[in-house]
Amino acid sequence: MKLKIAVLPGDGIGPEITQQSVKVLKAVADRFDHQFEFEEALVGAAAIDLLDNPLPEATLDLCKKSDAVLFGAIGHPKYDNNPDAKVRPEQGLLQLRKGLGLFANIRPVKAYDKLIEQSPLKAERIAGANMVIYRELTGGIYFGDKFTAEDGQSATDVCSYSVEEISRMAHLAFKAAQQRSKKLTLVDKANVLETSRLWRKTVTKIGEEYPDVALDFLFIDNAAMQMILNPTQFDVILTENMFGDILSDEASVIGGSIGLLASASVGKENAMFEPIHGSYPQATGKGIANPVASILSAAMLLEHFGLTTEAEAVRKAVELSIKLNVCTIDINKDNHYTTEKVGHFLEGLIS
Amino acid sequence: MKLKIAVLPGDGIGPEITQQSVKVLKAVADRFDHQFEFEEALVGAAAIDLLDNPLPEATLDLCKKSDAVLFGAIGHPKYDNNPDAKVRPEQGLLQLRKGLGLFANIRPVKAYDKLIEQSPLKAERIAGANMVIYRELTGGIYFGDKFTAEDGQSATDVCSYSVEEISRMAHLAFKAAQQRSKKLTLVDKANVLETSRLWRKTVTKIGEEYPDVALDFLFIDNAAMQMILNPTQFDVILTENMFGDILSDEASVIGGSIGLLASASVGKENAMFEPIHGSYPQATGKGIANPVASILSAAMLLEHFGLTTEAEAVRKAVELSIKLNVCTIDINKDNHYTTEKVGHFLEGLIS
Ligand SMILES: CC(C)[C@H](C(=O)O)[C@@H](O)C(=O)O
Ligand SMILES: CC(C)[C@H](C(=O)O)[C@@H](O)C(=O)O
Repeated sequence: MKLKIAVLPGDGIGPEITQQSVKVLKAVADRFDHQFEFEEALVGAAAIDLLDNPLPEATLDLCKKSDAVLFGAIGHPKYDNNPDAKVRPEQGLLQLRKGLGLFANIRPVKAYDKLIEQSPLKAERIAGANMVIYRELTGGIYFGDKFTAEDGQSATDVCSYSVEEISRMAHLAFKAAQQRSKKLTLVDKANVLETSRLWRKTVTKIGEEYPDVALDFLFIDNAAMQMILNPTQFDVILTENMFGDILSDEASVIGGSIGLLASASVGKENAMFEPIHGSYPQATGKGIANPVASILSAAMLLEHFGLTTEAEAVRKAVELSIKLNVCTIDINKDNHYTTEKVGHFLEGLIS
Repeated sequence: MKLKIAVLPGDGIGPEITQQSVKVLKAVADRFDHQFEFEEALVGAAAIDLLDNPLPEATLDLCKKSDAVLFGAIGHPKYDNNPDAKVRPEQGLLQLRKGLGLFANIRPVKAYDKLIEQSPLKAERIAGANMVIYRELTGGIYFGDKFTAEDGQSATDVCSYSVEEISRMAHLAFKAAQQRSKKLTLVDKANVLETSRLWRKTVTKIGEEYPDVALDFLFIDNAAMQMILNPTQFDVILTENMFGDILSDEASVIGGSIGLLASASVGKENAMFEPIHGSYPQATGKGIANPVASILSAAMLLEHFGLTTEAEAVRKAVELSIKLNVCTIDINKDNHYTTEKVGHFLEGLIS
């Protein structure tokens, strides 16, 4: 297979981890006889520094004409504590999601047997946890109007959802549930929000088309608690943009390290693959960042194009590396490997 | 001291637990020679059933002319899955908060030594955790305009905050931090939301008036993760309405049971005290609900009126009951006491 992959390393640890997943994808191409063509582009703080624009036009163009985007991370502390900054790195990511129409963000979470002791949660609570979060990604309060009053005395963010936006997500999530344990949980705040009530109504109706999937509902506050009390109850979780952002970061504690969690963002025509962790500025350049989330994102990329054997080879390699403790410091406290070494080891296993 | 206390038992387990805290307050009044006068009123589904109104005028009036409100719980499943319901129990609670101007919700969370083994989190992660969440309660997306388009094809919720709303919360939280470990964490999503940027700007500025308090910032997604990874890092958390709702329910896992968590909601003229758990319909009438959250809310009531010794007596009694395992089934799995028996035991300790 021929694939043109846009590589957007971004900020912080983005470049170092993305380098490893590119290495792994190259090893896959070699071994399975594919042609993957990589092209890099600027995004985020890196792009602001050079071009004063978190998503330069050339970057968006490259992504559009590529088959897939491999994304690193975005964000820089110098913008976080400056509420008056005119441009911010995150805008690059948000514009990219919107520009490519990536309405669904898919985040699998599972407890690796070997890592169960690493989790802050007790082993018996998380053993067997295996879920996937379907987060709506181009709607809601992220993309509604936002403004500050002229006198600076108040600010507003608008959250809207349409039946269409909800429906396309719901179908994806129901289909995923059919391939898994046939259980779908909609997380919302229907006791307070009008948008949540539209979600509940729309998803309930669409559920009739999937009679083999059991649908249930949780309020987000309760879900945030249940995620820790009893994570094995979840199979597919469907939720809106902001709740998905919160819940999936929270869920990362189940796996033992956020450095393991991959995601795919898909739309009608484009797809992007990125770790769920951020730019982790404190770790930048130290060789301590875990490249596995990015590498597992690359596996999701392979899967997306039907390269199931290839994706499985990557995942198996990751599992072996964890078993052998060839891991960065977030997992292997005593005798850790560098970002580069972990990447190199995985590359070797796959080649 | 003379206090007029409005008692709003509400729905589900609300009545059974509130009965216990009233019992305890009566014991306090007897022992310390106070005059507490109690008057009950309807709210929530209970009020809808009888009067078609989740917050009857008489209830709001009673609350206004009382010194404090003791609140049970609200919510009934028959409304949750009916997105078309015209009135819902939760409106009663929200109107009450707004009507009484209860802009600050204060939720202490701590790990009881005796219960550390009960938590889904590993003991070493939570030992010593002791924080208080200051949640804004009458603004944000809870109270902004909300509407469904005429064709039913889209819905909207508006989230707004003013500098004034943020400031009064910030002052309360900074003052609390001064009484504690002098650390305040603002939780927001300033990399995406305009309202969050106003929060960050306003709180930063007010922070200059409290130079002895160390102020830091966390994005809500990261905070939801840090709450589990490293809960002892928190002292006072300040956040907006929706984020506070999610984060405080999540934080309940630290204490070992949500059935232990109390809250105070305060405004300029009124104050209300309620457990953070909900109406827990599955448990209603079974005598298994934990009355401690309501009883500790009563302790916060006492504290609020400067009755420190009295509040301490209630808290000490609760601690002793936990030590002796005189607890409901959420805590004492093998040999549990009923709601009534726990209340009775605490009443006896205080008398
Ligand atoms: C960086 C930020 C804008 C982003 C988000 O909130 O969506 C991140 O937290 C994520 O989850 O991908
Ligand atoms: C019942 C509901 C409206 C309420 C809220 O969301 O505020 C509850 O979850 C709470 O936290 O007190």
